[in-house]
Amino acid sequence: MAYVNDNYLKLQAGYLFPEIARRVREFCDANPKAAERLIRCGIGDVTEPLPRVVVDAMHGAVEELGHRETFRGYPPYEGYEFLREKIAQYDFRDRGIEIAADEIFVSDGSKPDCGFILDILGDQNRIAITDPVYPVYVDTNVMAGHTGRAQSDGRYEGILYLPGTPQNGFVPDPPNEHADLVYLCSPNNPTGAVVNRTQLTAWVNYAREHQALILFDAAYEAYISDPQIPRSIFEIPGARECAVEFRSFSKNGGFTGVRCGFTVMPKSVQGQTRDGGLAHLHPLWQRRWSTKSNSVSYPVQRGAEAIYTDEGQKQVRQLIDHYMGNARLLREAVEGVGLRVWGGVNAPYLWVETPNGLTSWQMFDRMLNELNVVITPGSGFGACGEGFFRISAFNSRENAEEVGRRLAEL
Amino acid sequence: MAYVNDNYLKLQAGYLFPEIARRVREFCDANPKAAERLIRCGIGDVTEPLPRVVVDAMHGAVEELGHRETFRGYPPYEGYEFLREKIAQYDFRDRGIEIAADEIFVSDGSKPDCGFILDILGDQNRIAITDPVYPVYVDTNVMAGHTGRAQSDGRYEGILYLPGTPQNGFVPDPPNEHADLVYLCSPNNPTGAVVNRTQLTAWVNYAREHQALILFDAAYEAYISDPQIPRSIFEIPGARECAVEFRSFSKNGGFTGVRCGFTVMPKSVQGQTRDGGLAHLHPLWQRRWSTKSNSVSYPVQRGAEAIYTDEGQKQVRQLIDHYMGNARLLREAVEGVGLRVWGGVNAPYLWVETPNGLTSWQMFDRMLNELNVVITPGSGFGACGEGFFRISAFNSRENAEEVGRRLAEL
Repeated sequence: MAYVNDNYLKLQAGYLFPEIARRVREFCDANPKAAERLIRCGIGDVTEPLPRVVVDAMHGAVEELGHRETFRGYPPYEGYEFLREKIAQYDFRDRGIEIAADEIFVSDGSKPDCGFILDILGDQNRIAITDPVYPVYVDTNVMAGHTGRAQSDGRYEGILYLPGTPQNGFVPDPPNEHADLVYLCSPNNPTGAVVNRTQLTAWVNYAREHQALILFDAAYEAYISDPQIPRSIFEIPGARECAVEFRSFSKNGGFTGVRCGFTVMPKSVQGQTRDGGLAHLHPLWQRRWSTKSNSVSYPVQRGAEAIYTDEGQKQVRQLIDHYMGNARLLREAVEGVGLRVWGGVNAPYLWVETPNGLTSWQMFDRMLNELNVVITPGSGFGACGEGFFRISAFNSRENAEEVGRRLAEL
Repeated sequence: MAYVNDNYLKLQAGYLFPEIARRVREFCDANPKAAERLIRCGIGDVTEPLPRVVVDAMHGAVEELGHRETFRGYPPYEGYEFLREKIAQYDFRDRGIEIAADEIFVSDGSKPDCGFILDILGDQNRIAITDPVYPVYVDTNVMAGHTGRAQSDGRYEGILYLPGTPQNGFVPDPPNEHADLVYLCSPNNPTGAVVNRTQLTAWVNYAREHQALILFDAAYEAYISDPQIPRSIFEIPGARECAVEFRSFSKNGGFTGVRCGFTVMPKSVQGQTRDGGLAHLHPLWQRRWSTKSNSVSYPVQRGAEAIYTDEGQKQVRQLIDHYMGNARLLREAVEGVGLRVWGGVNAPYLWVETPNGLTSWQMFDRMLNELNVVITPGSGFGACGEGFFRISAFNSRENAEEVGRRLAEL
C-alpha cells in the first residue's frame, strides 16, 4: 500500500485559522442572536474593496484574453517581465536597493512561498524560528520532516525557538548557538513588532558569521511608517549574500482574494551541497518554478502591476491609512481598559496581554461569548504566545469603533 | 552554511520546455527572416481566446472585488463551494460517478497538483511511471529524493519505467512486479494514446491487488470523443479506493494563462503509515492546502464556474472542435508523407515516428531549420520517446494548414 508522509501526523490539531473558524461556527450555531452582532478581528483578512486602478487593470487583462489578437497562454514561469521590472524598480532600486528584475519570482502569495522555499533546501539544516510567529514556518518544517514530535508545550523537537517576550519587545536577538536557517518576520505577525536597523544588522552579521540563510517575511512592510525601520532586509549591507525575502500584495493592495506575492531571490545567495560544494539558490528556485508551476493568472499580474502607478500608490496609501486608523483606535481602546499592548504602530496587528492570567484560548472564548468579537489566541502562534491575543485592524471603521466600545465593557 | 536540496542537482539539463524555448530563441536570433514564418507546435499551449462566458464571469467577479458590499478576501482553502459543487455535479455525478463536492480541491493547475501530491506521500514508495510521459512526474520525484542518479539513457535509478511502444499502442500493461504509486496519463501527453475501459480496469485491479495508489492525470479528458473511452478513472468500479485524479481547465476552457485546475481526492483512499497503520489521504491533502496555500483567485474561480453553464459548455465544445479539426488535418498531412503517427483522435497531440532513424532532437532541429516549425522532441518525455516527436494541435486553423503544407516538403 502506498506510504503516506508520516510527518503530517505529527501536526497538532488543525492549522490555527481553520480551528478558529470551527469554534466560531459552533458558537454562531448555538447563539444565532449573538451571531448577528459578531465582529471578526481574528484572521488577518482585508475588508476594503480593491483599489480602482487594480480593478480597471484586471478588467483590461480579462478582456485581452477574450480576443485572439491579444490572447495570452502560459505566462513565463517566474512571472511577467512587466511586473518583475516594476517591482524591482519601485520596491527596491528607487529606494537604493540593488535588486534586479530577474531576482523577482512572482507567486500566488507569500504563504505558499514560505512553504515552497523548503523544496530547494536540504533536510539537514538547523532551523531557528522566532516565537510567537506565523504558524506556517513551523508547520511546513514539520511536514517536511525537519522536526521530531510535538512536546507538551506544543513545541517540536529539533527546532531552535527564539523567544519573543515583553522584555525584548518581541524581537529576539541572534542566538549564541549555530543555525543554518532563520525565519524572521517584520512587521511581525502576530505581535506587530518591527525589527529596527540595528537589530536587523545584527541578524545579517549573525547570518554571515554562521553562513546561515535568513528567510525574511516582509508581507506587512507597507504598514511601516517610521522611516528608520527597514522595509526590506536588502537595505542592510551584506544581506544579498545571506537572505531571501517574501513579499505580498495581500495587505497593501488588498489581494487576499486575488492572490499575488513574490519572492526576492538574489543571485548571490549560496548554499552548500552534501559533498561540501557550493550551489547558488537562484537556479534551483528557477527550476522549482518551471517544474512545479505555470506562474500566476495574467489578469492578476496586470492587477499587481497597477499598484505601481502613481494613482495605484495613492489608492494603496488610502487603504493603509484606513487600516492604521483602525489600529490607532483599537490601541487606545485596549490601553483604556488597562491592558498591556504592543504593535499597532508600524503594523496592522495589536498584541495584547490577557488579563488576570487567562490563557489565550480562555480569552478567545471570553471575547467570543461576552463581546461577540473574534480575536486570535496568542498560543496559536507558539508557546511564547500563551497569555496574549492578537487583534487585527483589518476591518471597516464602523466595526473597529464598535470593537473599541465593546472592549470598554471588559 | 545552509544546505541545499542536493536532489535538484541530479536533474538533467533544463526542464524540457525551457530548453526548447532556448533553442528556438537562438535560431530566431540567428535567422531573423525564418523567424518571421516560424510556427510553434511545440509546447501544448492554447491559442484561441477564452470563451465569452468565462470573460463575462471574470469581469463580474473583478467588479465585485471593487465594491465593499461584494468584496471577498481569502477564499476557502479548498476552493469555493460554488465551483466545487458544479464540478462534482457536471463532471461526475451527472455521468453516474460518485464524487462529492468536498472531494474536489481547486488549484491553480494540474501541473502544480501533480507535484504537490508528493507532499503527503512517503519517501519509501516504489514508483512506476509510464514512458514516454509528461516530464513533471519524473522530475518532481527526482526533486523529492525518490530516485538515484540519472543513467546514460536519461532514466533515473529507482523508478520503475513502464515502456509505451508501437507494439502496445503506447498504453503499457500493469507490470509483473510490485509498485506503490503509479502515474497514468490519459489522454496521454505526449503520445495522444487513450486508455480504454478494459485497460483501465486492469490497472484498477492491479492497484487493488497491490494496494497501490494510481495518480491519474486526466488534464486532456475533454478531447475524448469516443464514448467507450473513460474520461475519469472513477468510472471504473473500485477506483474510489485506489486513485486520485488531476483535472485542468487549461485545455478545455483555454485557461493556460488564467490558471485553474482541480484534484479529485476521494475520502475512501487510504495509505499506510510507517508503523503499519492506515491513514486517509483526504485529511492530509486538506491539511496541505490549508497550510501551504490560500486557494485560487476569486475571479478565476468564477471564470471556471462559467464553463459549466449551458452556454459555457457550447463554447468549450467549439474550442475543442477547433483544435481537433487541426489535429485531423495535421494527421492527414503526416500520413500523407508516409510517417507513422499515433494520437490526434481523442487527444490534441500527434505522436510521430522520426524518418530515417533520426533522433528526436535531430528531427527537432530539422523541423526548425527546414520547415521553421517547432515541434517537441519525443526523447524529452523519456527514453522510450527517442525516435519520435510530438506535434501539438493547439494552433490557429491557418497555422495548422500551413504546417500541413510544409510537412509535404519533408
